[in-house]
Amino acid sequence: MAQLVLVPSTLELSAIGKPCFKPQTQCCMVNSTTLNLRTSKFPLKKVTFQRQKPLRSLTVCATTLPIGQDAPPQPTNGFDQSYRDSSKRKRVMVIGGDGYCGWATALHLSKKNYEVAIVDNLIRRTFDLQLGLDSLTPIASIHDRVSRWKSLTGKNIELYIGDICDFEFFSAAFKSFEPDTVVHFGEQRSAPYSMMDRPRALFTQSNNVIGTLNVLFAIKEFNEDCHMVKLGTMGEYGTPNIDIEEGYITITHNGRTDTLPYPKQANSFYHLSKVHDSNNIHFSCKTWGIRATDLNQGVVYGVRTDETDMHEELCNRLDYDGVFGTALNRFCVQAAVGHPLTVYGKGGQTRGYLDIRDTVQCMELAIANPAKPGEFRVFNQFTEQFSVRDLATLVSKAGEKLGIDVKTITVPNPVSKMRSTITMLSALSLSRLHLMAHIFITSYLYFLDNVACCFAENVDWVRICPSKSLKKCKARPKLAQ
Amino acid sequence: MAQLVLVPSTLELSAIGKPCFKPQTQCCMVNSTTLNLRTSKFPLKKVTFQRQKPLRSLTVCATTLPIGQDAPPQPTNGFDQSYRDSSKRKRVMVIGGDGYCGWATALHLSKKNYEVAIVDNLIRRTFDLQLGLDSLTPIASIHDRVSRWKSLTGKNIELYIGDICDFEFFSAAFKSFEPDTVVHFGEQRSAPYSMMDRPRALFTQSNNVIGTLNVLFAIKEFNEDCHMVKLGTMGEYGTPNIDIEEGYITITHNGRTDTLPYPKQANSFYHLSKVHDSNNIHFSCKTWGIRATDLNQGVVYGVRTDETDMHEELCNRLDYDGVFGTALNRFCVQAAVGHPLTVYGKGGQTRGYLDIRDTVQCMELAIANPAKPGEFRVFNQFTEQFSVRDLATLVSKAGEKLGIDVKTITVPNPVSKMRSTITMLSALSLSRLHLMAHIFITSYLYFLDNVACCFAENVDWVRICPSKSLKKCKARPKLAQ
Repeated sequence: MAQLVLVPSTLELSAIGKPCFKPQTQCCMVNSTTLNLRTSKFPLKKVTFQRQKPLRSLTVCATTLPIGQDAPPQPTNGFDQSYRDSSKRKRVMVIGGDGYCGWATALHLSKKNYEVAIVDNLIRRTFDLQLGLDSLTPIASIHDRVSRWKSLTGKNIELYIGDICDFEFFSAAFKSFEPDTVVHFGEQRSAPYSMMDRPRALFTQSNNVIGTLNVLFAIKEFNEDCHMVKLGTMGEYGTPNIDIEEGYITITHNGRTDTLPYPKQANSFYHLSKVHDSNNIHFSCKTWGIRATDLNQGVVYGVRTDETDMHEELCNRLDYDGVFGTALNRFCVQAAVGHPLTVYGKGGQTRGYLDIRDTVQCMELAIANPAKPGEFRVFNQFTEQFSVRDLATLVSKAGEKLGIDVKTITVPNPVSKMRSTITMLSALSLSRLHLMAHIFITSYLYFLDNVACCFAENVDWVRICPSKSLKKCKARPKLAQ
Repeated sequence: MAQLVLVPSTLELSAIGKPCFKPQTQCCMVNSTTLNLRTSKFPLKKVTFQRQKPLRSLTVCATTLPIGQDAPPQPTNGFDQSYRDSSKRKRVMVIGGDGYCGWATALHLSKKNYEVAIVDNLIRRTFDLQLGLDSLTPIASIHDRVSRWKSLTGKNIELYIGDICDFEFFSAAFKSFEPDTVVHFGEQRSAPYSMMDRPRALFTQSNNVIGTLNVLFAIKEFNEDCHMVKLGTMGEYGTPNIDIEEGYITITHNGRTDTLPYPKQANSFYHLSKVHDSNNIHFSCKTWGIRATDLNQGVVYGVRTDETDMHEELCNRLDYDGVFGTALNRFCVQAAVGHPLTVYGKGGQTRGYLDIRDTVQCMELAIANPAKPGEFRVFNQFTEQFSVRDLATLVSKAGEKLGIDVKTITVPNPVSKMRSTITMLSALSLSRLHLMAHIFITSYLYFLDNVACCFAENVDWVRICPSKSLKKCKARPKLAQ
């Protein structure tokens, strides 16, 4: 049976990271094998290597998950067994399948023998056009991506180009593909974008809330047994001064006890839209008896997965700008080009993190072990937790190993009044499902060495500067950058 | 100083009611004077009295609030004093001022010497047209209402007809009127309406969330000091198995303590839209430093206020149908026409209730004692709490006093899996502001005798039948009734 694999590292950076799988600490299988860093089978062709300082010859410990290891995740007690009984190939609709997490997930599921369809309105690419941004890695069109996948693997991915806010389009797609599972990544996913101006704040909330409601109504109308797997965010919880649990918390008050939704304190109109979604999905499960899993994901880093590595046309996007780039991706690009890492405020906030290769595993686990009818199940989806300050230290040390001098500077926090207390996060559910997690210190070195440094010459320095205050959100649309 | 007035009643029905003002029990001034039931100064002209059984000559105890008593509410510690210092007449914009609570509030504030503007898109009247519904009481157009008010009192109410979801319209209205306070009633406010079908569910959430965001952006853009008073609902809390506090709850968990937003478990797409609003407003106050009061209102009953009683053209609406009618209004009409009271399920759920004359007082208190800059203040707005079963008993006994034989029947609960535990509700803030509350048993008798019975011949019996299950919400629009 698969187990969480913890690989001891020669980098000796592990003391800062806090393992998130509390009970797993006792039962995990420790694999002491030291492996050379795995390189891509299908290296990107247009690599331009511009690093100024020479690389040291380096052997590091890496967590490797063999590509050939296709054994399906094992069901465990507490999850719906009946869902797995059918011998028919399960059909998964990936909404937002052209995006960062969506594309990696669609390929991974197709590789794992699911019948996959992608639904996407391609608006993520439109945002780039409007804001003058671009992925650091060159990405092919969704049509070319899907064609290349077919030519390489013989596997078909159906493509529905359209907007899930348009119910006529979406219901037709749903009825045509007949999914067993809908994986829903199809939302505007940037907090800074949602805070730019009034039209973008309204677009974010309307687009995300209405799109999700349409998915819920389609499931209710056309296949109540269909499992909805929805991407949420750890940011929904905000920064409370108590430990963050998975979706629910048991409260004793004035002599009585109840288990209630964990109080949310989102810190952007985007994060709020995810809270609205969670509330709507919870109610729909309770009222209509449909089933859903809400994946409150931490900060994802990295870009390459086993599947995207198969050809340059399958390459995933890498956003490093202040609007769509995650802090960790930005750190990586900053380190690669010699820009100081920009840490907001004191950097004391604890966040959950995971490699994109673990994102796709988590999706697979959630799909293979669905919620029960009527259940609104919440997973906190991350593998390790660090403070931003700790991360900067880790990235600096990873840089040292590659011969890169990484500095850190502090910039004002764009989110006002955000607490900087240390908060313990809980992610028990995925450990119960035996997620085989990648370890940050080795994964990040791989990411820095094999992606950011390769594309360093393409980096636009303006985009790695600190973003502006979220308080400056205006009623009128922001001028083009 | 004004105090909460509790009047002992000769009806002897008070044992069932639970006073909601916990600390007030000790300090309230008990007024033992027995008064004759106050009749309207300006009785409705088109009264059609159709009661079959003769009325007994009846003297009851009534809580009377003298119309002439115009002393402004007293500020108390903890509220913003600076807001009250200006000698200029305060300007209040009432969004949704043509609706049930909005119209009564607009008149009350105008009477109390506020400069009042009404913003309304009149969609509540359109809903009636679409669904074939109507107010039991005849209501004049908003134009005639405002004209009549001007002719009676000399006081002007500015009128802006348009949709707050249209920011071009709303920002023009906001800049033109320059409000010190925005009272926001302008939302789709029916849970059954929101559960009819997909288009109405989406309309409810989009209309309510986007409209409220536009109000927040207008305040931020044009007058950050403007106080937003937003109508929420006690239904946002759902039916937890612990006492319901006012907006926040202090939780100790794993050795640390924090005061967090009270967990919400709304039970319709309408109630969910109010939860979304609360989250959005909370974030906006925290991030932008604007000020807001969220009034989580209980079930309102009654129709007449001192101001609407001044002329038939000022008459407020009375909804008794299964879509827009409250349970208490429906009970009243059912009692008046001899239809059994329809109690959903076991009727064990505890709810907060208040007379519409207390709604307008609460609005005035919240406006006169605004939140501080950056504060998201939550008031639970009700004056008494009862279970539905208790209410049916009270209404039956009130009917007896009027010579009406009132029966009760049980019908299936349209909200599935709603708990029927007894939950204590907290409403401390309004007691601190010295709300002079009407008492249910006397108010309701007045309501039943002076409104429902007068219009009994106009009652459409189809509309007082139990509504259908909320689970039957369909993706396609419902056919016209």
